[in-house]
Amino acid sequence: MTAGKLVRSQGVTAAAGFRGAGIAAGIKANGKPDLALVFNEGPDYAAAGVFTRNQVKAAPVLWSQQVLTTGKVRAVVLNSGGANACTGAPGFQDTHRTAEELAAALSNWGTETGAVEVAVCSTGLIGDRLPMDKVVAGLTEIVHELAGGISGGSDAAQAIMTTDTVSKQAAFHHDGKWVVGGMAKGAGMLAPSLATMLVVVTTDAVADKAQLDSALRNATRLTFDRLDVDGSCSTNDTVLLLASGASGVAPSQDELDAAVFAVCDDLAAQLMADAEGVTKRVLVTVVDAASEDDALAVARTVARDSLVKTALFGSDPNWGRVLAATGMAPVTIDPDRITVSFNGSPVCVNGAGAAGARDVDLSGADIEVRIDLGLGDSTATIRTTDLSHGYVEENSAYSS
Amino acid sequence: MTAGKLVRSQGVTAAAGFRGAGIAAGIKANGKPDLALVFNEGPDYAAAGVFTRNQVKAAPVLWSQQVLTTGKVRAVVLNSGGANACTGAPGFQDTHRTAEELAAALSNWGTETGAVEVAVCSTGLIGDRLPMDKVVAGLTEIVHELAGGISGGSDAAQAIMTTDTVSKQAAFHHDGKWVVGGMAKGAGMLAPSLATMLVVVTTDAVADKAQLDSALRNATRLTFDRLDVDGSCSTNDTVLLLASGASGVAPSQDELDAAVFAVCDDLAAQLMADAEGVTKRVLVTVVDAASEDDALAVARTVARDSLVKTALFGSDPNWGRVLAATGMAPVTIDPDRITVSFNGSPVCVNGAGAAGARDVDLSGADIEVRIDLGLGDSTATIRTTDLSHGYVEENSAYSS
Repeated sequence: MTAGKLVRSQGVTAAAGFRGAGIAAGIKANGKPDLALVFNEGPDYAAAGVFTRNQVKAAPVLWSQQVLTTGKVRAVVLNSGGANACTGAPGFQDTHRTAEELAAALSNWGTETGAVEVAVCSTGLIGDRLPMDKVVAGLTEIVHELAGGISGGSDAAQAIMTTDTVSKQAAFHHDGKWVVGGMAKGAGMLAPSLATMLVVVTTDAVADKAQLDSALRNATRLTFDRLDVDGSCSTNDTVLLLASGASGVAPSQDELDAAVFAVCDDLAAQLMADAEGVTKRVLVTVVDAASEDDALAVARTVARDSLVKTALFGSDPNWGRVLAATGMAPVTIDPDRITVSFNGSPVCVNGAGAAGARDVDLSGADIEVRIDLGLGDSTATIRTTDLSHGYVEENSAYSS
Repeated sequence: MTAGKLVRSQGVTAAAGFRGAGIAAGIKANGKPDLALVFNEGPDYAAAGVFTRNQVKAAPVLWSQQVLTTGKVRAVVLNSGGANACTGAPGFQDTHRTAEELAAALSNWGTETGAVEVAVCSTGLIGDRLPMDKVVAGLTEIVHELAGGISGGSDAAQAIMTTDTVSKQAAFHHDGKWVVGGMAKGAGMLAPSLATMLVVVTTDAVADKAQLDSALRNATRLTFDRLDVDGSCSTNDTVLLLASGASGVAPSQDELDAAVFAVCDDLAAQLMADAEGVTKRVLVTVVDAASEDDALAVARTVARDSLVKTALFGSDPNWGRVLAATGMAPVTIDPDRITVSFNGSPVCVNGAGAAGARDVDLSGADIEVRIDLGLGDSTATIRTTDLSHGYVEENSAYSS
């Protein structure tokens, strides 16, 4: 870990050179904030992005992937209240128009911006067109709301929430010289890869597109890609990293990697803690695997297993389900070498039950499931949650 | 379909040459029936079996796989109240002893039987040793209970239930000349492959091991392997097919295939209808796929998706989740060619929402999700259920 300090009270505007805003544009029927803007004042505009691997990609993902090929982003506009996914060519035109209207509003405001410099993110229900009259009116309004300082970032983080109960921000200050800050929204449809829906990370470090891309991919691989709430992967997942260079400091790749990782890791922990219906925060750690890929595959299979997740909801140390799930992972295991512990208490040793296994106390909110495969020395951890009545309730009537 | 009649009032003893029994041996703490026996009186003893692909296999699976290599089975003894999985070498010894004690009891009863002719199946909680004193006492008792006629089969079907709410039997009478009958228990941990936990199918047709094996693999591929309640695969899944040859009729392979399929298909439908927490019986059918494997992979991915399943529980026609799940299937799809209907009503046409999609009525207990990929002419269907409060409730405190 590089020298520095992580705080959760700041987000995308913690880094110099960034302004943020969040408003209620009327996209959401309930009148809550639903339009966010992150604006890079420079002097640099380098950027990198990672997007959903779902083959069904929302219009804003298709658009932003094109924008990111230039390696340059001046603004990110994000809306909640509608995913603009599965909306066909008209939906893509809506995204394109959003970028054009924002670019025009920013240019009118005195900062010459092209549509191709504007990334767009959307989140909400799949399948409906956005109310473009409200979006367009909101774009003009939000440009006038752009504020320096922390509050703009907090407003933006609020405006991207859907079923999130709290906004998620984190900022890492490196020796008081340069900063990486970020915001995220998650709640449901959290799975690799990416685990999150929308994340914007900013930095005032001096870094080019390749450095940012490397730092972002390293961080997402170890954080958002290892968060798996329900095995469902969104059509809209987007993680962006923007650099203004405003600090004038050019960190080493290792320093940049560490700072971006610190922010993404903290945001991933916040996403887990606020996942839909969560009553348990669960870490599934696989150790002594033949390879990191194997460890990850086993951890993912266990973390996704509905029977494991319902048992954890019930604080039931039903370790047999962990064994059964492990046996279905797409890697070769040796059942007689598997040792499992819950919160440090062995429940299964070399494939058979340990004394006292049925009495392990899992009543707390944090549970660590540790699986030792006894086959090598690689390890990996997946963050997940339990499968609760709250999850069922929240997801049983989302569109209706 | 071959000429014949399917009935649900009969099971493993519908075929001539088979006796069955079911008793309460005290394995279950609640005193319900927990020990079942299916006995083949011959003259033939041909048999085939299909077992779980889980790498963590219960002791009775390891034992019965060995028995089935001989292609000959005289008796199947099944217990509920304990899976005898993850019990190490002592657990395997318990299974071995069960087979030996049953063979001795049958030999004492006047039917010379070797332990290697006895298949063993167990179901229940993973990880605990069986109460062998009660099992052994029960084995002697159950041999004396062996009864001809239908009731012995029904008693056996009752004794293998765990969280099942009803026993499952089906028998197919081919032109009044020969019969295939079966019993099954399921309820939870239903996934490919196999979808079920324990199934015994019997026939009085004359058929050798190879014919039985072919008929059984064809049937399980199309039935139990296409039932996916929760994506969890048991350590104990076993499907056995035994032939007594008592009818003296040697059907063609096609006739045998059709009759075994009819019984397995009906048992699979019964397993779906009685799955843990089920409130909706769901068929996910994929059509116009490039291959049957592709169709199956997409149907399975959608059928396993927690967000799709919770929406169906809520009778919510949230078709966007079907698109999102389809996009994550491990096959190449074209988002712009996907057309989806719920119960025959189009909700998405060529990747975009159809008029009235949000108003489709899914309040009934049966839901068909049909996904047209527009890429070929192959099709496949997966049977699944919704994800309900009942599922969470039933699985949150199973071991404790």
